[in-house]
Order: sequence, then structure tokens, then C-alpha cells
Amino acid sequence: MIKPRTPPGVMELLPRDQVAFQRMLDTIRQSFERFGFLPVETPVMELSEVLLTKSGGETERQVYFVQSTGALEKGGEGLPELALRFDLTVPLARYVAEHEHELAFPFRRYQMQRVYRGERAQRGRFREFYQCDIDVIGKDALSPRFDAEIPAVIAAVFERLCIGEFTIQLNHRKLLRGYFEGVGIEGERQMLVLRELDKLDKRGEDAVRATLAGEGFGLAADAIDKLMAFSRVRSRGHEDALAKLAGLGAGTPLFEEGRDELRAILAQLKALGVGEARYALNLSIARGLDYYTGVVYETTLDAYPQIGSICSGGRYDNLASHYSKSKLPGVGISIGLTRLFYQLREAGLVGAADSSVDVLVALMDDAGLDAALAMSQRLRAAGLNVETQLEPRKLAKQLQYADKAGIRFVAMRGGDEAARGVVAVKDLRRGQQFEVADNQLADALLQARELREGALA
Amino acid sequence: MIKPRTPPGVMELLPRDQVAFQRMLDTIRQSFERFGFLPVETPVMELSEVLLTKSGGETERQVYFVQSTGALEKGGEGLPELALRFDLTVPLARYVAEHEHELAFPFRRYQMQRVYRGERAQRGRFREFYQCDIDVIGKDALSPRFDAEIPAVIAAVFERLCIGEFTIQLNHRKLLRGYFEGVGIEGERQMLVLRELDKLDKRGEDAVRATLAGEGFGLAADAIDKLMAFSRVRSRGHEDALAKLAGLGAGTPLFEEGRDELRAILAQLKALGVGEARYALNLSIARGLDYYTGVVYETTLDAYPQIGSICSGGRYDNLASHYSKSKLPGVGISIGLTRLFYQLREAGLVGAADSSVDVLVALMDDAGLDAALAMSQRLRAAGLNVETQLEPRKLAKQLQYADKAGIRFVAMRGGDEAARGVVAVKDLRRGQQFEVADNQLADALLQARELREGALA
Repeated sequence: MIKPRTPPGVMELLPRDQVAFQRMLDTIRQSFERFGFLPVETPVMELSEVLLTKSGGETERQVYFVQSTGALEKGGEGLPELALRFDLTVPLARYVAEHEHELAFPFRRYQMQRVYRGERAQRGRFREFYQCDIDVIGKDALSPRFDAEIPAVIAAVFERLCIGEFTIQLNHRKLLRGYFEGVGIEGERQMLVLRELDKLDKRGEDAVRATLAGEGFGLAADAIDKLMAFSRVRSRGHEDALAKLAGLGAGTPLFEEGRDELRAILAQLKALGVGEARYALNLSIARGLDYYTGVVYETTLDAYPQIGSICSGGRYDNLASHYSKSKLPGVGISIGLTRLFYQLREAGLVGAADSSVDVLVALMDDAGLDAALAMSQRLRAAGLNVETQLEPRKLAKQLQYADKAGIRFVAMRGGDEAARGVVAVKDLRRGQQFEVADNQLADALLQARELREGALA
Repeated sequence: MIKPRTPPGVMELLPRDQVAFQRMLDTIRQSFERFGFLPVETPVMELSEVLLTKSGGETERQVYFVQSTGALEKGGEGLPELALRFDLTVPLARYVAEHEHELAFPFRRYQMQRVYRGERAQRGRFREFYQCDIDVIGKDALSPRFDAEIPAVIAAVFERLCIGEFTIQLNHRKLLRGYFEGVGIEGERQMLVLRELDKLDKRGEDAVRATLAGEGFGLAADAIDKLMAFSRVRSRGHEDALAKLAGLGAGTPLFEEGRDELRAILAQLKALGVGEARYALNLSIARGLDYYTGVVYETTLDAYPQIGSICSGGRYDNLASHYSKSKLPGVGISIGLTRLFYQLREAGLVGAADSSVDVLVALMDDAGLDAALAMSQRLRAAGLNVETQLEPRKLAKQLQYADKAGIRFVAMRGGDEAARGVVAVKDLRRGQQFEVADNQLADALLQARELREGALA
């Protein structure tokens, strides 16, 4: 006998939690599709040579390699031929480059699949987790207008997920770099200073000031003041965001370019009807220092800032330089759904949903089987998810089972009900029982389900 | 520059094919849920020790092992700690045994995920492929009534997939083994004889007869006649199935048990309203000689018998003997969707669906941007999937793009239309253009989508 267990670092759910997780996946997917994003799935295994184009680096240390039994026995030098994807961005780059001539650009794609990283085993850290990504990829160029569509999608997703108020925080790498230029920090030093500013929350202002003034950086107090002031900028509401941008004063051409793009994004968010409480400037956001080149996004739950960003991304200049000579600029975001679900569940905000089964058709005795089966099929044809009790049991046991399984309704039709052309329905959530005419049962149950879905949407 | 490419033996789809594939997945899932099956997902990686409980065997030769970079560098004796699942049955056994005390039995679960096998690379053979499984697991016992629910689910799935007429073929291991007993073939010899009978199509009747009469088996001509006659039994329609069962004459107690169960299944299929053209006896079906113990199913497309079984399964006595002392009998089926999709596409029955995008909102000039964004959001709020053209281009280019992407409708609202409060809509499928009042646009497009979905359902 072998002890049944999963490897460390994976999240496996019981059915009622899985239903809740599946509803989140469905909601996210539907929101992505509403904005015209197209589905892509890629294989979980990529050729190592293709996946690991940059040698070394943190990511490669976390890669899982795959070997067939045959390859394992043969052994051999070098890396195994196959590896598991560690994100959805590298596979997207490979996909777009591979199918460049068959895709219509700008190419809006969504991808919701699991990725793999050999993280240190730790509570809340996962080695297998879902990423839900959208990206828009242009050929040669991509209008900055796409930068505003992305936060509109994020807003739609999190409004429909109903997990509380949230804020999409915006910054812009051109604004940031332009501002740094303006205080005399250029080139590689920008990154080093950014990295220090990123530690403001952790180390506190005094410590960061000391570092920036110290030997390595040697910044003047005046420059440090400016940097601190810049990275403290937060806006609240649409007009305030515009005012905060105006309040930054004149800057270098790069700075002005970034400011203009941010203004255009704000205007477009308004035209898209995105509520002004949903977005704000946060000029401390740096993200992916090497990767992003324009707008950057982070999203936080207002009531749970400690969860950190639940949806991040930004604009990049070239997606697939390793695979294609074409210039493929893009903008996108990613939701790490496994981690988010885990944290929402810890916070008591999701989990153990109602069953996906709408109704259990009870069975009183063997003579009632055919009628129970026929009733079940009628309800299914109407669009309901129905479980049929196939062996008669005590009614109390059937109700107990439905309750444990999270099934809200139990439909019972004994001899008495059959004679009167009605069905007795127990509503386990309300603890009520009512009767409904045979031919109105489906409508009554559908209505109850729509009410629930309405509450979720 | 590295050539972007996928490993051999995987199926990666372009967006329009992916939409078609996704619709099949959705239809299958919805049908599974209609019958009260609950979602389960398991990690793609299992502990090798847990996954590979049987040593040796064909399956183990095909297993992919997984190693983190660290484990790879360390090397070490024995098998790597992790392996990729090669089916969804072993993970189900592990899942049910692991969560036995938290699950409600009978436990109906569906699982639609990818599995991995190191198959020889070959056209139409996949190393990564979707399986869509349902199983019902009982604790200690499971009523034979569940055996009839499974083909009702299969019928619902394939009716809704609209890929042509199909037949669910039924046999029963007890009937088979009882019949073999009746002609004096017992124990292990039953398997050996079955294996020969299984070759009837390939080798022809004479060759199989010669083998069965030959030294290894030494069966009498009379016994061989009976075996041949039995395995040639096919029914057509409900009454014929009952007649064919009656026509087999009296048999051993095991035979009679199998016949009674088959009769009960047939009666229940009728009560469930499953069309009698959907199921038939086929007493040549053997399947998983060691594994199945009761009813067995295979499903074939009437017009494409060469595709073979597209959905197979049956009843088994004990799911998880390696992981649990509990007896966990079950019944289930599996659809190998990747292979099925591949073959349907080869046969021209699926592929390159309409886009998931319902409508492209065209943009005539920059001045129209805000109006185009607002219109897009109104259509989204009504439940439509909308792509907005964000940069003005020549209208011909926008129509060309929509056509290439498989988007059926393009909504255009120039100054003239705006002045009259209408939108011009181009229906690319019909090659027609019509006008509709602003406030009726969403309804008109929703209606068109419902017509399409109605055609699919």
C-alpha cells in the first residue's frame, strides 16, 4: 500500500473549492473574450533550446526538465531536450514568431494555463500555478491606445469577480526615466537608483536616503528630495490624476512623451466608462526593470494591500527578439490565479461554493425510478445540472447528502405528489419546502439559478 | 536567433482552430455537468512512487520524468522523484483515496486535462493530449444503475457536438466470461482466446479458426463455432437488442448475471429517453482485459468507422487498491479529445470556426474614437464579444482584417450614420450590409449569435 499524496508545492482542491475556482476561471475568460481576445494554448513542454534563450539567470535555476524513460536511460551530456514552461510570455513569443505569417495583427490573445517553477517549498508558494494572461502584439508598431484597453479589461475582470474594491495603479517608464534624466541620473544608474527606491517601504526613508547620498551613488540632497517626492506621487480620482501629472512641472522630451501617453490613457479610460475609483497614478511602481518600456500596471485589493499586486504588466518594445527579426511590440498583463485563489481563500473571500449541481432528484422507491429518470432528463433539457438518486434511500439520507455536497435543491415526487401533478422541492439554503406544478419545476429552478448568477455578475 | 518550434508530438492550434477546440471542450463539460458530475483537477506532476505502482509494463516505458535544475545537477540513483501523469485514472485513484473522508459517495467526477506519453512520433499520435473523463466511484458498492447513466451522458455529449451519427456499443464482461465458461474455456485461457478473437478483423476468420483449433488452444470445431457466433452478435434498435440477448440461450449463472445487467441497462436507457439508434450490442468488444469487470462501452462514428472508438470505458471492481484498503468500485469513460479533434479536422468535420469575437467596431477617423469606445462598451455590457479598431484605417482594410480573423459582423458609424442615429452593419458571412437603430444594435447581434449557437446545440 502506498500513501496517496501530491508532491509539495501544488494546489489540489476538493470539488466545492474546484467549482469556486472554475467559476473564477470562467469569469476571467469571459471578460477577456468580451474585449476581443482570442484563445491560445501552448504545450506544457517546450524544447529546452527554445525555452532557455537567455543563459543563466534566476528563472533558469527554477526550470523543470522533462525526460522520457528512454532518454533517462541513455543519459548523455548537456541539458535534457525538453523543459516545462515557467511563464506564458516566452511561449507567446515563440508562438507569435512561429506563426507570424498566419496571424492577423494586432494580435489579441488570452492564455490561461498552468506554469511550473521549482520554487522553494513554502506556504503560499506554488511550483505549479495558473497564469491568466492577455497581450496585444503589434507588427512593427502598436498604437499606445492599446495601453488603455488593458486596464479596462482588468477593471471588467475584477468587477465581475466580486472580490472587493480594487485599484489599478499606473506608472510609465518614460515618465520615470525622463524624470531621472532631469535630475541628472542617466543610463544604467537609473536602474540602480530605482532598485534603492523600491526598498523605501522595507528599509524606510532614512536608510534609502543614506544609501543614495553615500559613496556608491553620491547624489545631492536636492536630487534625492526630488526622487523621493516623485516616487511618493499617488492620485485619487480622474481630475486629481491629471492635476498630479501637471504638478510635476516641465521635463525632458522623454518625460513629456511619457506624460502625454499617460494623459491619453486617462482620457481613453474615461471614454471607456471605467469608474475613476478603479485607476490611480502610483509613481513608485517600477516592475520588470529591463523588460517594460512604457506604461506599467499593478492592481491591488483596497481592503487587502498585504496581498500585493494581483494583476501586473505593462508595455514592452519587442516580444520575440530571440526568435524573429520582426519587431513585435506589445502590451499585456498576467493574473497569477492559483496564488490569488489561495490568498482569497485564506482571507475567507472565496471557497466552498454551491455545487455545480442545481438539483438532486430524489428517489423514494424502485417503482419511481423511471419517473425520476424522465424528470431528470426534462430538467437537463431545460439547461439545469441534475443529479439523480439512482438507489432508494431514506429521504433524510438523501437530504443530508445534498447538503454535504452543496446542492441547493432536492426535488421529491412520491405517490401523493404524482397523483396531484406536483413536485415537492426542498430549498436547503433557506430551509424551506414548497410545491410546484410538474410543468413549472424547470422554470422555478432556472429562476433561482439566474438569481445566483446575477448576484455573482 | 533560434528557430521557433514546438517539440514533436504536440498539437498547437491557430486561434480559429483553438476556438473550435474550445467549443468542443465547453460542450463536453456542459454535458458532464448536466448529469451532476463535479469538476476535479489534479497536478500534472505526481510523485513517481505514487504514480508508478505497477513496476514494468508498457505504460511505464512511456512515462516522462521531471527534474528540477537542482535535482538534475545532484544526479543520484533510481528514478527521478516526479513524473507526468499518463492518464487521468491513476490520479483519480490517488485523489479518491487521499480525500476519501472528505468526499460524498457515490462520487461523480469529471476531469478534462492533458496527459503525457512518450509515444513514438507519428502522424496522428500525440505525446501530449487532452482526456475528458467521467467516473462514478462508490464506496464498498456501486449500483449497476450507474452503468446506464454513463451511455446517456455519452449520447448527450455527441449529440451536442454535432459531428454526425454515432453508436454506443455495449458488451458485458460477465456475459463474455459466462459464455466462455459455457463452452469450457476457464480462467486465464479466456484472456488468451479473447485476444485471438480480437484479431478477427485483422487476420480474417480462417486464420483465427486455425489458431484456436491448433496446438496451443486445441478447441473443438463446435466450440469455435459458438465463439465466432457470439462475437459476431450486433443489434440494431432496442427490441432487436433484447431479442439478440434472448437468442443466446441459457447459460451459466455468471452469464445470466451479465445478461440481466445488460437488460437493466437497456431498460434504463429507454427510460432516460436515449434514442434507440444511439446504442447497440456488440459482443466482440473486449477492452482492457484485466481491468474491466462488468459492462464495457465503445463509441464509433457511423460515417467514420476507421477512426475507431472515440469514447470508451466500462465498469471496474476496485479503483484504488494500491492506495486504500476501502473497496472503491466504479464505472467511467474517457474521450481522447486531441486525437478526436485531429481526426475530425482531417475529415473536414471541424476546424477554423468563426472567431469568438462577435463584432468588430470599425473606426473611421480619430474624432470617432470616443464614440467607438462607448459603443463597444455598450455591446459588451449586453454580453457581446467586441473588438474595437483603435487606429483609423481604410475601411477596406478593416473589413479584410475581420474576414481573415473570422469575425462575422463589422459595425460602422460614420458622421452620416451618427446624424441619423443608426449603425451600418456589414455581415461578412452573408456578404450583406444593413442599418439598425443605435439602440437596437446589441439585440440584433445577440440574435444572430443565438441563431449560431442554436445551430450548434
